[in-house]
Formats: sequence, C-alpha cells, structure tokens
Amino acid sequence: MVVKVYGPVYASPKRVLVCLLEKEVEFETIPVDLLTGENRRPEFLKLQPFGSLPVIQDGDYTLFESRAIIRYYAEKYKSQGTDLLGKTMEDQGLVQQWLEVEAHNFEPPVLNLVRQIMFSSFYGLTGDKKVIKESEEKLGKVLDVYEDRLSKSKYLAGDFFSLADLSHLPFTNYLVGPVGKEHLIKERKHVSAWWDDISSRPSWKKVLDTYGLPF
Amino acid sequence: MVVKVYGPVYASPKRVLVCLLEKEVEFETIPVDLLTGENRRPEFLKLQPFGSLPVIQDGDYTLFESRAIIRYYAEKYKSQGTDLLGKTMEDQGLVQQWLEVEAHNFEPPVLNLVRQIMFSSFYGLTGDKKVIKESEEKLGKVLDVYEDRLSKSKYLAGDFFSLADLSHLPFTNYLVGPVGKEHLIKERKHVSAWWDDISSRPSWKKVLDTYGLPF
Repeated sequence: MVVKVYGPVYASPKRVLVCLLEKEVEFETIPVDLLTGENRRPEFLKLQPFGSLPVIQDGDYTLFESRAIIRYYAEKYKSQGTDLLGKTMEDQGLVQQWLEVEAHNFEPPVLNLVRQIMFSSFYGLTGDKKVIKESEEKLGKVLDVYEDRLSKSKYLAGDFFSLADLSHLPFTNYLVGPVGKEHLIKERKHVSAWWDDISSRPSWKKVLDTYGLPF
Repeated sequence: MVVKVYGPVYASPKRVLVCLLEKEVEFETIPVDLLTGENRRPEFLKLQPFGSLPVIQDGDYTLFESRAIIRYYAEKYKSQGTDLLGKTMEDQGLVQQWLEVEAHNFEPPVLNLVRQIMFSSFYGLTGDKKVIKESEEKLGKVLDVYEDRLSKSKYLAGDFFSLADLSHLPFTNYLVGPVGKEHLIKERKHVSAWWDDISSRPSWKKVLDTYGLPF
C-alpha cells in the first residue's frame, strides 16, 4: 500500500517525507494549496478536522500531526531502513525528550521568525522588529543548550541519528535559508557540525530537490 | 528504584504523577518553587537545562518533558497497570496523534487563559480581555472537534483510556476550576461526559488530593 502524504511543499509534511525515505516506505504526494484555502474545504476537514498539514492515508488508515506520523512509521518499520528510535528503552526516552524540545522550545521562536521575515516579505510587508528581536534572543538561548548537548554526543538523543534530529530539518532549513539567520547556527561549533551532518543526508536532499519550498 | 519527580504542585508534572499511579510505579516527589526561582539554580539546570518542569530521575537516568516521560513509562511498563498506549500499532498511532493535538491545539489557548485569568488574579492584576476573548474562541473551536470525535468513540484515541486523555487532566482541571470556564466543557455533551469520566479516575483524584494546586 502506497502512503498518501498531503501538502508536500510545506514544512511540517516534509518531516513525514524525510522519515518515509529513511524508512524506505513507498509514498505518493497530494498537493494542498494553503493560499487558496484548500485546507478549509469540507473534504479536507474530513481527513484533518483542524485544517492543518500534514495528513497521511495508508489504506483506510488516516493519521495527522507530523510528529505522530513519524513516530508511527519509525515504530511500524522498526527494523527497516534507518532505525530512528534508538536501541534501548532509555535511548528511546531521550529521542522522545528531544522531539518534545524541538516542538516546544525550538520551533516556536523559529516559526515567529518565519512568519515575521519570510511570510512578511512574500506579502510585501515589514515584519515586527520587536518580535524578531525577542524570537532571535529566545532561539539563541535554546541553541546554547543544543551546543552544550552536542558537545557531548554527536546527535541530540545520543550517538545515533533519530527522529529528534530529523524533526529539526524543515524549519532549520527555513532559518538558514529564506529567513536569513544562518549565523545562529554557524556561530555555534557543534550545532553547525550537527546541521551540516543532518542536512546533507540523501533523504533530506531528495525531499528538497523534489518538493522545494512553498514560495 | 523509586522514581523522583520534581515539582509536583504544578500542572505539567501532574501528567507524570497520574501516569505513574496508573502504571503502578513507585515514586517520590521533590518540591521545586518556581516563585523563588529554584528552577533557575545551577543544580536544577544540570537536570533540566531549560529550567522547566517536570524532570524525573530514575536511578542514574534523567528525563524531562512531561509527554516524553509519560510515553517512556507507558512503554517501559506496557503490561503493568493500565495500558495507556493501545493494543494495535494503529491505535498507538492515534494515541500519539491526539497527544500531539493536546499539546498543539488544546494546551496553548488554555495556557493563555490560565495566564490571563488565574495568574493575573494571583498577582492582583487584570488579564488582557482581548487575549482572553480570542483564546476562549480558539478553544471553543478545538472543543467542537473534540465533541465530534467523542460522539464516535468514548475516548480520544478510541474506546480505551490512553495517554491522550490523561494528558488533558492538569490543564482542564485549571480550566473548569480557578480559570472559571467550566461552561466550555459542560455545554458540549460528549466532552462533558468524557471529562466527568477521566477526572473521576482514582489516580487523578489522588494526585489532586495529595499535591493540590500551586497557589
């Protein structure tokens, strides 16, 4: 059964795409245009009642929320492709921990920067300078913790690439690209080496080459 | 080994406490006073570098982020106490999905209401009426989705109590209590029945009776 992934050009669905490539699971993508409100149409809301991306269909099984989907496939195909969960229960706990950190500490300030810089620019507007400054400071503190952590282990959850690292790919890609804040990564030695490592994985390059950015 | 749980009077650590009770895992609690900044002290930051609660110590294993901790114990003691993960891989995927919905759709507007109403009142301030109105509207829409979902299955992930339901306990308890927005739950028949069911579990009653609220 080929997995259907909705909305491949956007950031969160790319978490799912890179995970499926790492797990060697076949998929096809279905475009959803947020700009024309396709995500608010009744047929989409039947799949994802909050109107968010991504959502997947795998036979008659429907699942949404990118971090739930990547957990599902990492578990379902544990022994196929790259192991993204860790070998021991304790390693798996740390993968979950850093996946939560990505969601609650890392993504919110990056998302603010994406909205204020990248989206504003697309609409010909100027972003809110106060929000930009505060978000950058907040993100800097989060990355200081990452720098310390990555000075002790090659990846966030330990010496193995996992869902926790993978989950950072889409929004860090915005950060170092269209948002123009690459220095936040580059000025931290271990964070920079980690980013070079994870962003050069063939799976991620393929996702970017195939699906690009929304605008 | 008795699990040490830091900061039992606060909301997020209560997710961990109720989970450990459901899983019949022995624990002890260590108070952390956020009002005096105990969470910013170096010895605490060694355990949780972001200065957030909760954090647990289980022998020499340290883990933070409440939803990572509850996943870890639900998995580690899968066949002990209440099964909080679901039987099939697909059920487990839905548990993860609704746990993410709780984190990303449900908690943010509730947290705004907690800050603007409960915390403001504690400090003798008046909350921001615009934020309160917007958060209540946002939460109402989320609860409309819950109402539809809970008209089809007894609990969020299916006909079994899971981490997804459990994770709602601490902040919904604020919402119907000190925040004074019980009507948002009561005016939705299925959400109301679900709340009555999950909040009357002996594990949750014990957590509230033993650790109360922070102020």
